[in-house]
Amino acid sequence: MKKALAFDIGGTKIYNTIIDENGKIIAEIDKFHTPKTIEGIKEILANQISRFEDEVDVIAISTAGAVNNENTAVIGSTGNLVKNYRTIDFQKLSNKKVFLENDANCAAWAEYEIGVSKGTAVSIMLTLGTGVGGGIIINDKLLKGKSGAAGEMHFKMFTDKRRKCTCGSWDCFEIYASGTALKIDAEEALNNPEVTTYDVIDGVKNGDTKMTEIFERWQNDITQGIIGLANLFDPDCVVLSGSMAQFVDTKKIEEEVNNNIVTTPTSIRLAGAGNYSGMIGAALLAFRSIK
Amino acid sequence: MKKALAFDIGGTKIYNTIIDENGKIIAEIDKFHTPKTIEGIKEILANQISRFEDEVDVIAISTAGAVNNENTAVIGSTGNLVKNYRTIDFQKLSNKKVFLENDANCAAWAEYEIGVSKGTAVSIMLTLGTGVGGGIIINDKLLKGKSGAAGEMHFKMFTDKRRKCTCGSWDCFEIYASGTALKIDAEEALNNPEVTTYDVIDGVKNGDTKMTEIFERWQNDITQGIIGLANLFDPDCVVLSGSMAQFVDTKKIEEEVNNNIVTTPTSIRLAGAGNYSGMIGAALLAFRSIK
Repeated sequence: MKKALAFDIGGTKIYNTIIDENGKIIAEIDKFHTPKTIEGIKEILANQISRFEDEVDVIAISTAGAVNNENTAVIGSTGNLVKNYRTIDFQKLSNKKVFLENDANCAAWAEYEIGVSKGTAVSIMLTLGTGVGGGIIINDKLLKGKSGAAGEMHFKMFTDKRRKCTCGSWDCFEIYASGTALKIDAEEALNNPEVTTYDVIDGVKNGDTKMTEIFERWQNDITQGIIGLANLFDPDCVVLSGSMAQFVDTKKIEEEVNNNIVTTPTSIRLAGAGNYSGMIGAALLAFRSIK
Repeated sequence: MKKALAFDIGGTKIYNTIIDENGKIIAEIDKFHTPKTIEGIKEILANQISRFEDEVDVIAISTAGAVNNENTAVIGSTGNLVKNYRTIDFQKLSNKKVFLENDANCAAWAEYEIGVSKGTAVSIMLTLGTGVGGGIIINDKLLKGKSGAAGEMHFKMFTDKRRKCTCGSWDCFEIYASGTALKIDAEEALNNPEVTTYDVIDGVKNGDTKMTEIFERWQNDITQGIIGLANLFDPDCVVLSGSMAQFVDTKKIEEEVNNNIVTTPTSIRLAGAGNYSGMIGAALLAFRSIK
């Protein structure tokens, strides 16, 4: 059975392990703080690769940022990684093939191969965390677009410029559906810049009316966004992952979505491939690429 | 060279002609008012098919409404066609194969094979007419979704219930970007239920400030919708067709879109495959299906 040396490169942490063709993690998971320099990132990758590359068939990297259609390089810059991250020549790091894919795409792929979207023709993964990531799979292929950057969840929730998005434009889904968005919702509703996402979640648990209202508005924004996606893609399912996904009422969202679409009913599911789905998806995609 | 007997079945008219493998119309174009009964529609189709089916290799139907993934039947109902239209058994109308596809998908395909999106990896067609149709092509295939109904341009432009959409939900792109939408914009701005889309277009031509403002708001709504589509699909181009497309400033939309996306630049183009692109696209798709 083939093995992949898998990495997950995020804004704060880099993870690394070995994964087999079943998507099973078969080694310890190493963890590093993401260095603030390209050299630092390259050093971690180079060290780990030199330690383990003889044991594996391919190097599989799940990374923040968009990845080109050849899965060889990062394109464009990513807000939460060091500037010029994309100038790293990943292919030079190993004698084995180095396969890259965007982390949300990798997580979507893990769900598709071993998680809750297995067997579907069309699935959409939304990672609800600090931001919102997107991964869309259509007929056994990731939607990559002309450059590799497709699946960005930056479509409008309003068109009259209410809330600036992290992307520089206005009123994108990301700035209404992320954890950050829930904090902004609460700040605006309570006129209190100190309130946190945790305060809202805690308030909901304790039956606080105001906090529940804020939470439900946020959940409704997620619902409204999914309605648009369901009409565009007619997916079998929409998978929710990321740190915020555990708090939403998937049944309620599903009912509301299916009452408001012109396509056919979809299902809303919580991700099931676990915390390391990025590395697992990267590995499974990398195996396909060397077949 | 193969030939297709092509139909375009719309809410008001049915067109019929013969088209060759180059997408060339090689016979007269017959035109009928769309009957208000299923029997009436079937009679027109049956008559035309019995007249011409011996001359052709396949029957190709571009139709209002969503078409299943097998391209054999209409699924769901379509607002502007007779109730139960979808119960027509199209396959029984001819001894030759009867191939169906949604009209916006057909028009998108015509542009892809012989029009302005030729050679692209990812293209999106928006037909701006009474409503808004959508056709999305990704890597040489129409985006159909799990049932065949994908590509519906019903994503939100607002999420606080301002304007009811024809689909029964609220604030969809269609009800801000169609010709109908421009009339509603004008009615609201002028507090005059009698104002027409034509009045606005005429006003813009004559330099009327208020009408120009109304028109630009409408054009901006189209722009805002395309921003979301460009971030989701990362398309090479967005093609505008339909009766309203001729009035928009594609260069202005393109500039605004490319200044507001996180993916890579796209181009906005006016459709070039002509008035019968529905029948042409249906024919070209039908030829593929019998290869």
